[in-house]
Amino acid sequence: MDLVGTFVFAISGAMLGVHRRLDVFGVLVLSFAASSAGGIMRDVLIGAVPPTAISDWRYLATSVAAGLAIFFWYSPWARLHTAIQLFDAAGLALFSVAGAEKALTYGLDPLMAALLGMVTGIGGGMARDILVTRTPTVLQADIYAVAALLGAGLAVTGSWLRLPLVPTAILSALACFALRVAAIHFGWRLPVALTSRDPRDDAAT
Amino acid sequence: MDLVGTFVFAISGAMLGVHRRLDVFGVLVLSFAASSAGGIMRDVLIGAVPPTAISDWRYLATSVAAGLAIFFWYSPWARLHTAIQLFDAAGLALFSVAGAEKALTYGLDPLMAALLGMVTGIGGGMARDILVTRTPTVLQADIYAVAALLGAGLAVTGSWLRLPLVPTAILSALACFALRVAAIHFGWRLPVALTSRDPRDDAAT
Amino acid sequence: MDLVGTFVFAISGAMLGVHRRLDVFGVLVLSFAASSAGGIMRDVLIGAVPPTAISDWRYLATSVAAGLAIFFWYSPWARLHTAIQLFDAAGLALFSVAGAEKALTYGLDPLMAALLGMVTGIGGGMARDILVTRTPTVLQADIYAVAALLGAGLAVTGSWLRLPLVPTAILSALACFALRVAAIHFGWRLPVALTSRDPRDDAAT
Repeated sequence: MDLVGTFVFAISGAMLGVHRRLDVFGVLVLSFAASSAGGIMRDVLIGAVPPTAISDWRYLATSVAAGLAIFFWYSPWARLHTAIQLFDAAGLALFSVAGAEKALTYGLDPLMAALLGMVTGIGGGMARDILVTRTPTVLQADIYAVAALLGAGLAVTGSWLRLPLVPTAILSALACFALRVAAIHFGWRLPVALTSRDPRDDAAT
Repeated sequence: MDLVGTFVFAISGAMLGVHRRLDVFGVLVLSFAASSAGGIMRDVLIGAVPPTAISDWRYLATSVAAGLAIFFWYSPWARLHTAIQLFDAAGLALFSVAGAEKALTYGLDPLMAALLGMVTGIGGGMARDILVTRTPTVLQADIYAVAALLGAGLAVTGSWLRLPLVPTAILSALACFALRVAAIHFGWRLPVALTSRDPRDDAAT
Repeated sequence: MDLVGTFVFAISGAMLGVHRRLDVFGVLVLSFAASSAGGIMRDVLIGAVPPTAISDWRYLATSVAAGLAIFFWYSPWARLHTAIQLFDAAGLALFSVAGAEKALTYGLDPLMAALLGMVTGIGGGMARDILVTRTPTVLQADIYAVAALLGAGLAVTGSWLRLPLVPTAILSALACFALRVAAIHFGWRLPVALTSRDPRDDAAT
């Protein structure tokens, strides 16, 4: 499951890289960052070093393959924004669930395992966006980290209830994916704090 | 002391998040990043994994409470810039001192413990600013990292002289806070290198 | 070799800091970040904590010395852009090779050691650029990460063939440096993916 998540996140990173007209190596770096930063953060935080993404060459190979595929077969006619968002949602779902389960394995308590699952899910996207100096989607987008937390939380709850692992993981990931895609489709957004400020002022901050 | 520092830094992060019109979860992520990134960096660097901010739920609870408080009771009439700076200065003072003392406990030599104290103090603010793609205050502001280094250095010196822990910590934190607030109030700044360049050129860099 | 790399990378960081008109402490933070971030990333990833750059005061002293030297003797007439790029290329070469060799020492397999050498080389520059909210050079520049990978790969190959350590390291670093400088001089660039998009559109992304 980790490798599938790596692949789809790598695609989201590569698409952003191509979109920003990075060169082929920049695209590969961005696809590796998008696909591995979350897992690396989780592994460093729970003390599982060297992180799987570093010690296991299959993760690197997967992200390079995804990056090259996008680089060479990137269709300019693709509805780019939507495609990036869909792959991003799938990666988010897979990583949040896998991340939460790995944190549980390392003995973290359920609340913190859910949090680390969320970090695994959103870390790659944050690294990807920071690398191209864009405010991370997670901080602004419609129901992004919430979806990650939902997936991670369901996985942790399932483990706590001793439900069978694989169906729980699949359902948790689907719930996360569905919430994120519904949020994109229907434009659901979390509330913004009420201020009397005019939004246009913010540019000056 | 760590929890108090967490609270005030979380407030500074939440205020910036509200100011940038992030949604409620974005505000919480920013308050967690501002309050925990410095401590997490320190813990990862000294090998104390999982970091306290991850393994102890009280840190998360504190930053979430601070973030929600700001989100719901954010007064648009607050003199925002000043308030963020004051909370930031308090967090800086508390974290620098606590960070230096934790690094000493892990057996680092005094010079490096003072440096890690400074990292603990400025790390949260740097992470907060980078997340909203703002050049970190620490690199530009009046006497920011210097104040953190003063607090951390005093705490390390006190420990080296075997002075009693609590009074030393309080005085070190007060010295750091006072220096930072004085620098804000009087507009003290560190010198910038002399160049013949016209500042207006920099926009093009 | 690590200390020489620290020095030249610190100079590249300090020059960027002066160029962006940071104050003296900001310049020092930027020179420390540019010179140490790559090595710290490598050490955290392979579990060598506390990282050398933190536990050995000579790294800090070297980067502070380089930062102060640039701050006080920065010549406004220097051909700034070229100078930063040359120092950056030298640091890249030294760090990639030293990083790959350290990763080998910690038992990583050759492919991953070469990758970590590249991370060591490009990490400092990425941290430096992110701190001043600039899209990292590595993602856009002519043959940057490729040169790092070449140096690291040669060093790993040499070690695998049991060639003598010092000549291998020097030749690997020279190859990396030469490739990078040639790429700058002749304007070599890696290809960008073909899209039908007008480059001017990207500003709106």
